[in-house]
Amino acid sequence: MASEQRLQADIDVLKQISELCEGGTTRIGFTSEYRAGAEYFKSQMERAGLSVREDSIGNVYGRLEGIEVGKPAIVSGSHLDTVRCAGAYDGIAGAVCALEAARMLKENGVMLEHPYEVMGIIEEEGTRFGQVLLGSKFAAGHFLDPDKDLMKDSRSGQTLREILKKYAYPDACPALRQTNEIAAFIELHDEQGPLLEAEGTDIGVVENIVAISWLTVTVTGFAGHAGTVPMPLRQDAATGAARLISYIAEYTTVKYAYSATATIGRMQLIPGSSNCIPSRCVFTIDLRSGKMSNIEELIQSIKAKAAEIAGECSLEIHVNIDSRQEPIKMDGGLRDLIKQSCEKLGYSYRDIDSGAGHDAMIFSSRWPAAMLFVPCVKGITHNPEEYVHPEYLVKGADVLYQTILALDQKE
Amino acid sequence: MASEQRLQADIDVLKQISELCEGGTTRIGFTSEYRAGAEYFKSQMERAGLSVREDSIGNVYGRLEGIEVGKPAIVSGSHLDTVRCAGAYDGIAGAVCALEAARMLKENGVMLEHPYEVMGIIEEEGTRFGQVLLGSKFAAGHFLDPDKDLMKDSRSGQTLREILKKYAYPDACPALRQTNEIAAFIELHDEQGPLLEAEGTDIGVVENIVAISWLTVTVTGFAGHAGTVPMPLRQDAATGAARLISYIAEYTTVKYAYSATATIGRMQLIPGSSNCIPSRCVFTIDLRSGKMSNIEELIQSIKAKAAEIAGECSLEIHVNIDSRQEPIKMDGGLRDLIKQSCEKLGYSYRDIDSGAGHDAMIFSSRWPAAMLFVPCVKGITHNPEEYVHPEYLVKGADVLYQTILALDQKE
Repeated sequence: MASEQRLQADIDVLKQISELCEGGTTRIGFTSEYRAGAEYFKSQMERAGLSVREDSIGNVYGRLEGIEVGKPAIVSGSHLDTVRCAGAYDGIAGAVCALEAARMLKENGVMLEHPYEVMGIIEEEGTRFGQVLLGSKFAAGHFLDPDKDLMKDSRSGQTLREILKKYAYPDACPALRQTNEIAAFIELHDEQGPLLEAEGTDIGVVENIVAISWLTVTVTGFAGHAGTVPMPLRQDAATGAARLISYIAEYTTVKYAYSATATIGRMQLIPGSSNCIPSRCVFTIDLRSGKMSNIEELIQSIKAKAAEIAGECSLEIHVNIDSRQEPIKMDGGLRDLIKQSCEKLGYSYRDIDSGAGHDAMIFSSRWPAAMLFVPCVKGITHNPEEYVHPEYLVKGADVLYQTILALDQKE
Repeated sequence: MASEQRLQADIDVLKQISELCEGGTTRIGFTSEYRAGAEYFKSQMERAGLSVREDSIGNVYGRLEGIEVGKPAIVSGSHLDTVRCAGAYDGIAGAVCALEAARMLKENGVMLEHPYEVMGIIEEEGTRFGQVLLGSKFAAGHFLDPDKDLMKDSRSGQTLREILKKYAYPDACPALRQTNEIAAFIELHDEQGPLLEAEGTDIGVVENIVAISWLTVTVTGFAGHAGTVPMPLRQDAATGAARLISYIAEYTTVKYAYSATATIGRMQLIPGSSNCIPSRCVFTIDLRSGKMSNIEELIQSIKAKAAEIAGECSLEIHVNIDSRQEPIKMDGGLRDLIKQSCEKLGYSYRDIDSGAGHDAMIFSSRWPAAMLFVPCVKGITHNPEEYVHPEYLVKGADVLYQTILALDQKE
């Protein structure tokens, strides 16, 4: 069984390695704080008897060789960077549990057929260069060497190449992984949502990383004095927008309760004076679902309702689709192994979609990849209050360990 | 009958006396443009045979003496200042029609019992010192000499006293009017709303300058990741706000169609990221009605609905009343005279509430005061496109003239 004490000690130390930030952790890629966090993680991997290396982009690895020479590695890990003023678990929980699985292998004297690699991934959150999943994209070859000149640091304006000149070690290994080096990638992560905790389920087995569509809605009416235009003669952009937003939330909740989300996160009224009827309202819609067809249906439904409201309220409503990303399915074989491991350990589990992007979706483009979620309190994330009960960290590490054993036998 | 040509010439000249501003007019109190506009207006009053003076705050007057010595004056006028990039009629129409009434008196050889004064009022819009109705407040004694040290110019930081040292003439008459100097104040204004034009009514006889209440609503939910919190588990501040806004607009329209307004002019989502469920939504409500009881009922209804939505959506909703201003009733006797004048001239009229504040409401605190509205196209105002058809300016000046004659006989 995984050690609660070891897991919690790693979480607690990494929580403290931070820029000044009240109650939370700020450890952004390529900073001195990130260097300190990566060095701590490397020291713990070394202590566990792993052979440690760092690649040219700043991802760190700890490797246990397998019995059979030349077999591809089973890789597990997650990111070590955080958003500003983050909690202690997003990413970190997965890296620490992957390390704990290695310690369990050593402790139990298990020799795998395959090599096992723990991976601490850099700059998943995209805070530094506005590019999420940066470390995994270099590992999987989505980004290549010339891309280092194209990315600019949002603070200093320096390119990634200039930043790496100071940050990376001269003897770093190449970031790009060859296809035959890796057998599978398994990532543990906290759910960042409230579902598992609300149900009392131990483990979420990720089925899809959801499809995401971003829309911008522009409602155009006619500005007027708040006191002089009678209600029936108004073309009020705020009122039309409010009706559409109410509809979107209710329709999505009733029809797609747990299978799609619709979020209105940004909104602007123009001209934005308290005594002026708004001539324009612009708002964003973030649509997510495990099934692209759900997104398509939602877009249809939103457009139809927008046209109806526009007609009834003498408004123009334009729904623009800014981006559309297909869902990414996790590997079926790996998912079965995770479920079998849960059953073997007597832990409850359920299929779940990941509403957030994760490094596993980048690895899945080249290798079999899967994810398991552990519950976090109230689904709070990107917030100092993010919390995962230690018992769930232990259960997660146990399932990860069991899955690695099963995968090693299977391949 | 009033002269369309004279009225339009005054409107057209004053439209041109402006700071640089595309298609519109910017003539803010105490600027060189305002000085030029006031001098033009004074020159036209002199040309009409009026005895011209300027007071210490920059209000300008043209006076026709009455037959009987010592009678109080019938005063008519409106403001000569504009908002930034305004139309040509807001305020100006009333000043120019008051001047036209004086020209008609002269032209028709009418000698009134009372003196008649045309008044061009300074800084009604409040653009310069953040104090609306400034000129009329000094005339009515709402502001007194020491207040000149308390008001600061939003551009230069100078006090009104410092500004006046350069702007006002050393031989200016006092701004404060004595109670026994004025018999009544009558203000013509464009409606700034669409009602008269939509109905084809010539004249609006203002019953009330409406009661105004300003509210701030704060909806507090719980922030979360747009992808990881299922719809039924959300505490989404934007959705709760949208439901409340939809309700406010529909309830006010159905129950109070032409007798109250509710405007949501400002709104902010926090944190305001497209991929984050808003934890907070703050928006303003501007409520206006001729009857305070309508406002009170609307506030009750909004609070009740807010509590209902808060319960259903697990939100906190706080409705704060920032300000409450009672309605101001125009003088009943003067209103009757305006209506009788309309009937005599064969012009259509209706009772109407003014949703905007006007100088007449300041005068009404000390003297009988009334207002008549002329239709403006589509209700557009505070916009270069504001337009009053010349025939309605003529009808307005005719009614004003007729009312002055009637009032002179009555008092």
